[in-house]
Amino acid sequence: MTAFKTLREEAFQANREIPRRNLAIYTWGNVSAFDPQREIFAIKPSGVEYDALTPESMVIVDLDGRVVDGACRPSSDTNTHRVLYREFSGIRGITHTHSAYAVAWAQARRPVPVFGTTHADHGAEEIPCTAVMNAEAVKNDYELETGNLIVETFRQGGIDPAHITMVLVAGHGPFAWGGTAAESVYHAAVLEEVCRMALLTLAVNPAAESLPEHIINKHWERKHGAGAYYGQKR
Amino acid sequence: MTAFKTLREEAFQANREIPRRNLAIYTWGNVSAFDPQREIFAIKPSGVEYDALTPESMVIVDLDGRVVDGACRPSSDTNTHRVLYREFSGIRGITHTHSAYAVAWAQARRPVPVFGTTHADHGAEEIPCTAVMNAEAVKNDYELETGNLIVETFRQGGIDPAHITMVLVAGHGPFAWGGTAAESVYHAAVLEEVCRMALLTLAVNPAAESLPEHIINKHWERKHGAGAYYGQKR
Amino acid sequence: MTAFKTLREEAFQANREIPRRNLAIYTWGNVSAFDPQREIFAIKPSGVEYDALTPESMVIVDLDGRVVDGACRPSSDTNTHRVLYREFSGIRGITHTHSAYAVAWAQARRPVPVFGTTHADHGAEEIPCTAVMNAEAVKNDYELETGNLIVETFRQGGIDPAHITMVLVAGHGPFAWGGTAAESVYHAAVLEEVCRMALLTLAVNPAAESLPEHIINKHWERKHGAGAYYGQKR
Amino acid sequence: MTAFKTLREEAFQANREIPRRNLAIYTWGNVSAFDPQREIFAIKPSGVEYDALTPESMVIVDLDGRVVDGACRPSSDTNTHRVLYREFSGIRGITHTHSAYAVAWAQARRPVPVFGTTHADHGAEEIPCTAVMNAEAVKNDYELETGNLIVETFRQGGIDPAHITMVLVAGHGPFAWGGTAAESVYHAAVLEEVCRMALLTLAVNPAAESLPEHIINKHWERKHGAGAYYGQKR
Repeated sequence: MTAFKTLREEAFQANREIPRRNLAIYTWGNVSAFDPQREIFAIKPSGVEYDALTPESMVIVDLDGRVVDGACRPSSDTNTHRVLYREFSGIRGITHTHSAYAVAWAQARRPVPVFGTTHADHGAEEIPCTAVMNAEAVKNDYELETGNLIVETFRQGGIDPAHITMVLVAGHGPFAWGGTAAESVYHAAVLEEVCRMALLTLAVNPAAESLPEHIINKHWERKHGAGAYYGQKR
Repeated sequence: MTAFKTLREEAFQANREIPRRNLAIYTWGNVSAFDPQREIFAIKPSGVEYDALTPESMVIVDLDGRVVDGACRPSSDTNTHRVLYREFSGIRGITHTHSAYAVAWAQARRPVPVFGTTHADHGAEEIPCTAVMNAEAVKNDYELETGNLIVETFRQGGIDPAHITMVLVAGHGPFAWGGTAAESVYHAAVLEEVCRMALLTLAVNPAAESLPEHIINKHWERKHGAGAYYGQKR
Repeated sequence: MTAFKTLREEAFQANREIPRRNLAIYTWGNVSAFDPQREIFAIKPSGVEYDALTPESMVIVDLDGRVVDGACRPSSDTNTHRVLYREFSGIRGITHTHSAYAVAWAQARRPVPVFGTTHADHGAEEIPCTAVMNAEAVKNDYELETGNLIVETFRQGGIDPAHITMVLVAGHGPFAWGGTAAESVYHAAVLEEVCRMALLTLAVNPAAESLPEHIINKHWERKHGAGAYYGQKR
Repeated sequence: MTAFKTLREEAFQANREIPRRNLAIYTWGNVSAFDPQREIFAIKPSGVEYDALTPESMVIVDLDGRVVDGACRPSSDTNTHRVLYREFSGIRGITHTHSAYAVAWAQARRPVPVFGTTHADHGAEEIPCTAVMNAEAVKNDYELETGNLIVETFRQGGIDPAHITMVLVAGHGPFAWGGTAAESVYHAAVLEEVCRMALLTLAVNPAAESLPEHIINKHWERKHGAGAYYGQKR
């Protein structure tokens, strides 16, 4: 079916970007591509290495977690993806990785302060870190509750997922999203680089301070505001 | 002989994976592949660079340390391998490297805490670090006693080598094992990445805490438990 | 026009060097090449990936910031470049990147001490870090004021931009310049390596001291003084 | 002349190994190959990039520092090399680099403790760091005095340059030597890796302790002692 073919191709290409950008070794990351009209997404098959992927191997799943099409088992993180597609309207791609610097901040259970303009170019607030999941939620449905934990973190913090497109799940690692599957991988790569820079900043100056608001907002606005002037006109 | 040929090929392929995964420079690592029926293993020849290896150069050794077949001297760590094959039933491959982050924890003489799910996916307990070997054991038979030290560490700690498939030898470096030679290299690569993430975690938060048990167990079970659902059905 | 062609080619080649030297991912850096007679410079188009660049895509801009030739929007940092060309006489190339170690020092808001000869070979003083820009300057014209901030830092510190060819903009990242566009990229790569070495030095010894003046000056003089004897005669 | 040809080829091949092993960027390292019978050595030309080197471009210099043959200027560090060839009998190759971790320890002005067996495999003592050169010595003949400083460090410390084949020059960087030019590059690569591991060890445990003597000596002896059993018989 054509819609599946396009969606699978998009998910396939984005998954292949994970090892190219050094965001995961072996099979430690997955990307999905969402079709909001059909309410289905194409996601990486579980435990398959990136070199062995084909567009056909991408699994088509609906928002209730049912496999609609595909011969493989979908990623074990599929339920996290579907919660995010349900709750964060407008997103069309999600990336989960175990990239080392983002994992370090997630394991340290620390949100990432806005130390500089590299961060502010991609989000005008600190990158949130969730709470550690409680035993009941783990028992209930771990991956689905991981999605709920992310959603709660954004709701309780008053954070707009259209502005902050990345999160650290405490003790686990990063999730990122975007308007396409490719953009979600871009945000995952940004998160890794921002986490690396923030860690190195603390190594130089453990008392490093966040950027003042007027610079944070300027960098965000010049790329994403009404009068944005970064990049080419489209 | 066919059995030697297959075993040598397995050991050869696994040794070539060491530089590909950046687990050792020059000749600083070795892999062996074990045949439990014949009680022999094929191991890297000592001091030969990975590019110069051939399947034929792999040395066939029995559990008493005698060379059964092969023109080269076996790895100087051969006696460590044979102790582990004798004592840890069920393992069929062993990898030893000098990968930098695992060596750092071994030199720091610290077990690696379970800071996150990357670790828990591959073992539900901290990665043990042996004691420093005493002078008498060094004098007796250093490499054999290195094996004994590892075995003691697991026995005294009540650790199951089928569950924790890696160890740090204090002041030396990592050993890892698995159901095949290839799996033992995978575990050596996991150990290096987990050690890197743990070091970076401490750099962000020197007081970082271990994952709670309910999450550790969940991650271990979803990959290795009776109801495991990670990966494809086989 | 031939002059544009040569200048564009120079800017194009220098921009391609950014990913080769691992100085930026995606589109996070830009180089310009200056023609002091015509008072124009060729600069990277905004938001275009390095692989997609062509010599023709380089934008020709004059010192008032007007696009003289080119179909694309110039880099969003164009106004910073033109201030530096106006105020630092003799420079003919400028590079801006978000390389991680230089960004770390910029985010830590710390000048880089002269810890060793690698630094002294390229500059006999610490690498300055600007103040954080105030709200009014940001509101006025952010990129132009970034240039002014750099110029002020050098004027107030009595620093000669012909001797110190690099700077950290606080909370942002590095700028470097030189006698050609290619040389400005070289200086950006030097800055990244010097920042990396300085951070690692502090990791070994948080109380590390600067080189004494007599060694700093010797290294600077042997490469750049009247009796310089490094390199081949030209 | 044939002797020059062989010596130049040896120096050429060893210099090309520097960028392959990531021991220096641009032109920041040099190797020489020594012929003890003729008392001449072939050394990298100053300031020439590794890709542009040819065997013919290697400069032949005698122990008084006179250029015997070659169209290029020899490395600016030539006088350091000739002091070491004069004073450390038996060495036939020298490598100098600005590899980042070795530079970090040199800039921190700290000898590298024997934290583990990777170090002990290549030397049974800490890697010494010289004093900082005084102003008079710098004024006299900087590069020659760098050689003298290294020699003094070994003499005063009672260190045998046949056993410890590497040194850190305070505030500058590493020098390493060996029985061939190729071996000197190997020792420079070992030094960089050992310095990296030692820095990471301190990051995990700032109070890390040196290996006990009985393990240091065992590792040294199994590779270099009378009954050495590492590697293949020759």
